[in-house]
Amino acid sequence: MAETTDGIPSFDDLDEPVAATATTTAGQTSIPGMPASPNPAALANPKADIAALNDLERHLFAHRYASIGIECYGPSIDPEAATGDRGEALSILQEEDQALLCSAETGALLERLGSVGELLSPTQRAQVRVLTRDRSRLVDIPAVEASAFTRLTTESDAVWRKAKDANDWASFEPYLDRVVDSMRRIAKLRRPEADPYDVWLDDFEHGSDRAFYDAFFSQVKETVVPLLAQIQAKRWQPSRSCVEGKFDERRQWELASNLMALEGLDPKVMFLTKTEHPYSDALTTNYAVIAAHVHPDDVVSNVYTMLHEGGHALYETGVDPSLNYTSLKGGTSSGIHESQSRFFENYVGRDRAFAPTLLGTMSRHFRGQLGRVTPNQFYLATNRAEGSLVRTEADELTYPLHILIRYEIEQLLFSGEAKAADVPGLWRQRYKDYLGVKVTDDTHGALQDTHWADGLFGYFPTYALGGAYGAQFRHRMIEEGMDWEGVLSSGDLAPIRAWLRDRVWRFGRSKDPAQIVEDACGEPFDARHYCDYLVEKFSAIYGL
Amino acid sequence: MAETTDGIPSFDDLDEPVAATATTTAGQTSIPGMPASPNPAALANPKADIAALNDLERHLFAHRYASIGIECYGPSIDPEAATGDRGEALSILQEEDQALLCSAETGALLERLGSVGELLSPTQRAQVRVLTRDRSRLVDIPAVEASAFTRLTTESDAVWRKAKDANDWASFEPYLDRVVDSMRRIAKLRRPEADPYDVWLDDFEHGSDRAFYDAFFSQVKETVVPLLAQIQAKRWQPSRSCVEGKFDERRQWELASNLMALEGLDPKVMFLTKTEHPYSDALTTNYAVIAAHVHPDDVVSNVYTMLHEGGHALYETGVDPSLNYTSLKGGTSSGIHESQSRFFENYVGRDRAFAPTLLGTMSRHFRGQLGRVTPNQFYLATNRAEGSLVRTEADELTYPLHILIRYEIEQLLFSGEAKAADVPGLWRQRYKDYLGVKVTDDTHGALQDTHWADGLFGYFPTYALGGAYGAQFRHRMIEEGMDWEGVLSSGDLAPIRAWLRDRVWRFGRSKDPAQIVEDACGEPFDARHYCDYLVEKFSAIYGL
Repeated sequence: MAETTDGIPSFDDLDEPVAATATTTAGQTSIPGMPASPNPAALANPKADIAALNDLERHLFAHRYASIGIECYGPSIDPEAATGDRGEALSILQEEDQALLCSAETGALLERLGSVGELLSPTQRAQVRVLTRDRSRLVDIPAVEASAFTRLTTESDAVWRKAKDANDWASFEPYLDRVVDSMRRIAKLRRPEADPYDVWLDDFEHGSDRAFYDAFFSQVKETVVPLLAQIQAKRWQPSRSCVEGKFDERRQWELASNLMALEGLDPKVMFLTKTEHPYSDALTTNYAVIAAHVHPDDVVSNVYTMLHEGGHALYETGVDPSLNYTSLKGGTSSGIHESQSRFFENYVGRDRAFAPTLLGTMSRHFRGQLGRVTPNQFYLATNRAEGSLVRTEADELTYPLHILIRYEIEQLLFSGEAKAADVPGLWRQRYKDYLGVKVTDDTHGALQDTHWADGLFGYFPTYALGGAYGAQFRHRMIEEGMDWEGVLSSGDLAPIRAWLRDRVWRFGRSKDPAQIVEDACGEPFDARHYCDYLVEKFSAIYGL
Repeated sequence: MAETTDGIPSFDDLDEPVAATATTTAGQTSIPGMPASPNPAALANPKADIAALNDLERHLFAHRYASIGIECYGPSIDPEAATGDRGEALSILQEEDQALLCSAETGALLERLGSVGELLSPTQRAQVRVLTRDRSRLVDIPAVEASAFTRLTTESDAVWRKAKDANDWASFEPYLDRVVDSMRRIAKLRRPEADPYDVWLDDFEHGSDRAFYDAFFSQVKETVVPLLAQIQAKRWQPSRSCVEGKFDERRQWELASNLMALEGLDPKVMFLTKTEHPYSDALTTNYAVIAAHVHPDDVVSNVYTMLHEGGHALYETGVDPSLNYTSLKGGTSSGIHESQSRFFENYVGRDRAFAPTLLGTMSRHFRGQLGRVTPNQFYLATNRAEGSLVRTEADELTYPLHILIRYEIEQLLFSGEAKAADVPGLWRQRYKDYLGVKVTDDTHGALQDTHWADGLFGYFPTYALGGAYGAQFRHRMIEEGMDWEGVLSSGDLAPIRAWLRDRVWRFGRSKDPAQIVEDACGEPFDARHYCDYLVEKFSAIYGL
């Protein structure tokens, strides 16, 4: 995904099991606004249980609304001295949420509701399923283990930041081993029968495991590694000079607003703000935040960042509004979320047929600099494929190889075949083998990402998977008769939005990712569409 | 208070008893993070009770932090479509807070702690006292009455907004009678033995009642009404032309930052933002918000608004930081809060000795426009006293008469001597008698303020009282030997801040207003200092 700098999206922050700090000794905590003791009569009274479910959801909604708002705006607008107080307030709200979800009353309520499924609406059944899953991710970790892990990752993150700046792998190394050990231990406590890495893969993409990703990545590897080698053998790259130079920041912000409109985001539900690390998030379908940056010397990066974050925002604001005050609000998984951001960034934004529209929009703000650039020049300049060191700056073709390398190393660490001390070597070897580049330091190597320091093992693979989901959606649209080139050429993306809204967005978390893909495409997930797309596109560009 | 446009400050929003909507049938609701049933052993275990108190305070803190943030930023930055969701989230957080405070467990806890006062620290005793008072304001109103009142004032506010725009008293009239009836009934339920208006006066300024305010306002009336008549008889006013004209908005914002620094606000704890109706608020002592506006054609108004809101922010951020996560955070009453805002607006900002500093600061941003204005011209231009129609635009001398009129009418409505239908007539007569002005329409008359529509009877008097508290603080500083003129001439307000921090700010809500005044000044509240100040200042200006 070329120039887009994506940090860790915050969509799944509230789902992160690793953040569990509250006591999970169920039965000790009671629930605000709910009867203190479960009413035995409720066993024969699903109506009362449904009312209790709605009440639980209302309270979770309010806490989620407050927490997302504080997390979104806090770092950019809070005065410097307030950081500690913000952290304290957030941790208490999180603790309340967990007390609410983990209480024995909630457990009993969800169990009763789970057993009377036939009396519930489909939405209510999905609520019970998703809440039960969210709850089990928390209650199955002993409180002492959860808080030790939070302390460890807090410390590990701080050590990593310094280590990255100082190119000092050795200082981070012991923390990485400790994080892996902790995550293995916690996974065993949660699901003793499962492989520990599978537990975390499933957390970020429900229904996935190593077998699933092994199959996916082996297809990707077999396709992309030789394709990239062929491209490198050509010793030719399209020129990027036509989109280089200094671009006025104020005009870039005006362009950013126009790009939101071009994607079809409703300004009445959007808040666009500035940040160092771009992200998007949503409080409800009526309230999405895009935080982006503009670098004066890289307009292309900024444009694709906006399209990427705009895709996330379209998904979040496209959920059925009736789910707003429930746990079904928002995206169903990290992978499906990335499928939407990358859809608008790559399948739309980097398509030849869309180049005239996108270039035209940019030229309206920078006529002097871009007025004479042709759509073909622009298309080629924004589609260069080449081996590189840094994941967040990688192009559409090589991006999944960066992810593959992380996936392989995560597996080795979790299986015990490798220790942290082996990682820089594994990293260098794989970057050379798959991407054909020489890793010169750990700052731009194994220390570049924050994920491992933060205990987010299992998260990376969803980035590549999202690209593959998106390719399958695109394939299906065309198969069903959408005039893909015609729609992109027209610049009006309404047919694409309508399709995605109908098949993906509106369901929120009420459908799991595999179900979304199968129902949308009439077949299960198949990485072939992604591989075919990459081969076709980049063979054409490079004349292979 | 001259050109400052102050809406209703939000400091006391969380104390408003009228906002009670949660069920107050104690015993039905339980408390997040607290043991579900009171532990009988705690009767003999104050340590456990103190831990429970701290836990209660932590949860109240987090909700307050979230609510204030949402209320501060929401209206200015939220996307248009999100208003309803914001309201829903806020009302649930408020409901949780009330459930927390009103639960039977909290009641029993506070009762036990109240009975072992000797075992508690002074701060803990104050926490118990303030929480008990906050709680009783809620639990003494039946839930059905509280929610009916919220519905009534929501509707009444909407009707008032239209009525004000349309100069249509008749449409608002029935709502005003209903609001007064409701407030009388609720007051009787809460304190059957007390006069209903006294109940509400006490809510906004603990320890005050009609007898207190009658004495205060009769002194004010006897002083200001004849003084204003003398001024009007002179038929001379200082010119304001030296500070009139168009002032660039961007430079006015830079000036606003300089004014914060001039007052001594620490930029590390401040967030300055834009709004239509200026206010300030604080999440903790590390986080104050000032929302202000700049009108290009009224730089003087903007300057005094900043000084006024800065005074509020100095108070909030000057509370002892150890009270941050307790109910003792923030200002102790509306009156004491106004005493601080008006101190910096009027006693500092409108003093002759401060004019060179203030004008100098302004001139650095507007040299072309203000470079030739003399401090004396500036002093006179910003201290014109004259009868006027609109409270928020009134000057320092006549401001308390606007309040007096509202206080008198509130009393007549509560005693039943007047109905809403009589209000425009009472208003016209009093504006003529006290201020010498002719009320031409209700838009600029009895419909100008939102307070009555919102059920805030008893709030207005605190505005005038704050001015009088401030005059007494100033008097005491001078009596204790502070070189008032020297300090203001130097432009370094540190000695004034040190005095106020030591006597007022640091206590937060741990001292009641009367105690603050008596301890700070070595004597009880005495309106004489205020009246003496006004006579001396305005006699000198107008040569009486």
